[in-house]
Amino acid sequence: MSGPAVILVDPQLGENIGMVARAMLNCGLTDLRLVRPRDGWPNEKAVSASSGADMVVYRAKLFDTTSEAIADLNRVYAATARDRDMTKAVVTPAGAASEIRAHGTAGTGVIFGGEAKGLKNDDVALADKILTVPLNPDFKSLNLAQSVLLVAYEWFKLGDDTPDSHTMTPGTRPANKEELLGLFEHLEGALDDSGFMHVREKRPIMVRNLRNMLQRAGLTEQEVRTLRGVIKSLTYRRET
Amino acid sequence: MSGPAVILVDPQLGENIGMVARAMLNCGLTDLRLVRPRDGWPNEKAVSASSGADMVVYRAKLFDTTSEAIADLNRVYAATARDRDMTKAVVTPAGAASEIRAHGTAGTGVIFGGEAKGLKNDDVALADKILTVPLNPDFKSLNLAQSVLLVAYEWFKLGDDTPDSHTMTPGTRPANKEELLGLFEHLEGALDDSGFMHVREKRPIMVRNLRNMLQRAGLTEQEVRTLRGVIKSLTYRRET
Repeated sequence: MSGPAVILVDPQLGENIGMVARAMLNCGLTDLRLVRPRDGWPNEKAVSASSGADMVVYRAKLFDTTSEAIADLNRVYAATARDRDMTKAVVTPAGAASEIRAHGTAGTGVIFGGEAKGLKNDDVALADKILTVPLNPDFKSLNLAQSVLLVAYEWFKLGDDTPDSHTMTPGTRPANKEELLGLFEHLEGALDDSGFMHVREKRPIMVRNLRNMLQRAGLTEQEVRTLRGVIKSLTYRRET
Repeated sequence: MSGPAVILVDPQLGENIGMVARAMLNCGLTDLRLVRPRDGWPNEKAVSASSGADMVVYRAKLFDTTSEAIADLNRVYAATARDRDMTKAVVTPAGAASEIRAHGTAGTGVIFGGEAKGLKNDDVALADKILTVPLNPDFKSLNLAQSVLLVAYEWFKLGDDTPDSHTMTPGTRPANKEELLGLFEHLEGALDDSGFMHVREKRPIMVRNLRNMLQRAGLTEQEVRTLRGVIKSLTYRRET
C-alpha cells in the first residue's frame, strides 16, 4: 500500500506527529514529511504516540522548507479550515480523494499546518487546491491527527471494496424458502392446535402477518432449526 | 442540530470521553450517553479534553446498563472492529449514515465499547446491526474518539451541501471569454513583435497551445488584468 504524502509544516508536539502517523497507517498511508518540527527530530514521543505505527514515524523525511518537501510531487492540496483571500479551488476530503484516485495517487500530497497557526498564505499558494473539511459551522475544532484521518480515510475508502452493508452468517447460510415454509407451517399448525387462530376469517391475515415478520428477520438455516425447536418445546409444555 | 445518540459503554479515561464529545460536536452530534464510566461522573478531565465542546459533556446522560441507555431508541448500531460469531448485518460508517438518514435520525444511536475491551457480545446482540470501519487490514488501530469521528462525519456529510469542489474568487469573478480573448491577443501581439512567433507556419499551433494553457488556469477578471499588466511591463522593458 502507499497513498498521498502527508506533509506537516511547523508541527509542534511529538505526540501529535505520532498520532498523525497512526491515523495515516490505519488508512494505508506511509509517506510522512516534516518541515521544521518544533521539538526536533527524531522524537521519542512521536514513536510512543504512534501506537504501533512507528514504521511511519521512523521513515518520516525531514525538510527545511515546504517547497523542498513537495518538490517531487505534481499535485498538492493545502488543508486549511480558514477562507483565504485568494482565488483558488476548494475541495472537500471526499472531493480530494476522488481527484487523487482519478489522477493517480503517486506524486500527490496534502500539506497541513502546525497546531497553533495552521498554514501560512505562502504555503497555501504553493498548492494546487485548498482542502477544507466541511463541519458544524458553530464548532469547527479538529485536531491535527483528526484532520489527517478524515482525508486519509476518504482516500482509503475509494480503494476499498467492503460493501456498505452485508450480513455475517458464520458457520451457516441464509435459509432457503423451503426451510422457511417448513417453519411457517410448523408455527401455523401449532397455533391452530393452541386455539390462537380460532376466528377462522381472521386466519389468512394472521398467517400473512406472521410470515411477513419472520421473512423480515432474514433467518439462517440454523436459526430456522432453532425456532422450530422453540415451537416444539412450547407445544410440548402445553400438552403436559 | 441533533444527530444519532453516541453511547459509550464502560469508557475509561475522562480525556477520551471529552475527545468523543469534541468529535461529536464537530459533526453536529450532541446526545452523549455513558454507561458505567470507570472514573466516575462528572469528570473534569472530560470537560477540558472536549476543547470547548463542554456543552456535550455537561449534558451527557448516565446509565447503569446498556439496555437502559438505548431504551428510547428504535435503531441501534454496535461499533466493533472484531468479527463476532453471530448472524448479523454489518455496515460501514457510510452505510450506517445513509440508513440513519433514510430511516430518520431521531431514535437512532451507535454504541461503542470501552478503550480496553470493546463491546461485549451481549451488548452487540442488543443492536440492530454491527458497524465496522473498513481500515488497513495490516493496521487497524483507531482510538475511541477517532471511531466516533468517522461515524459522526459520515452522518454529517449526508446533511451538508458543501460541493465536493468549488472555486473561491474573493472580490472578483471568473473572467468572461471577451476578457480572455483580449489577453490572448495582447500576448500574441507582443510575441509577434518580439520575434517569438517568427516561424509563420508554427504560429497557429503555438497560439492554440498558449490559449489552452491560459484557459486551463481558470483566470478571474482581476487576474486577466494582472497578466495584461505583466505583458505591458515586459514589453516596455524590451523597448527601452
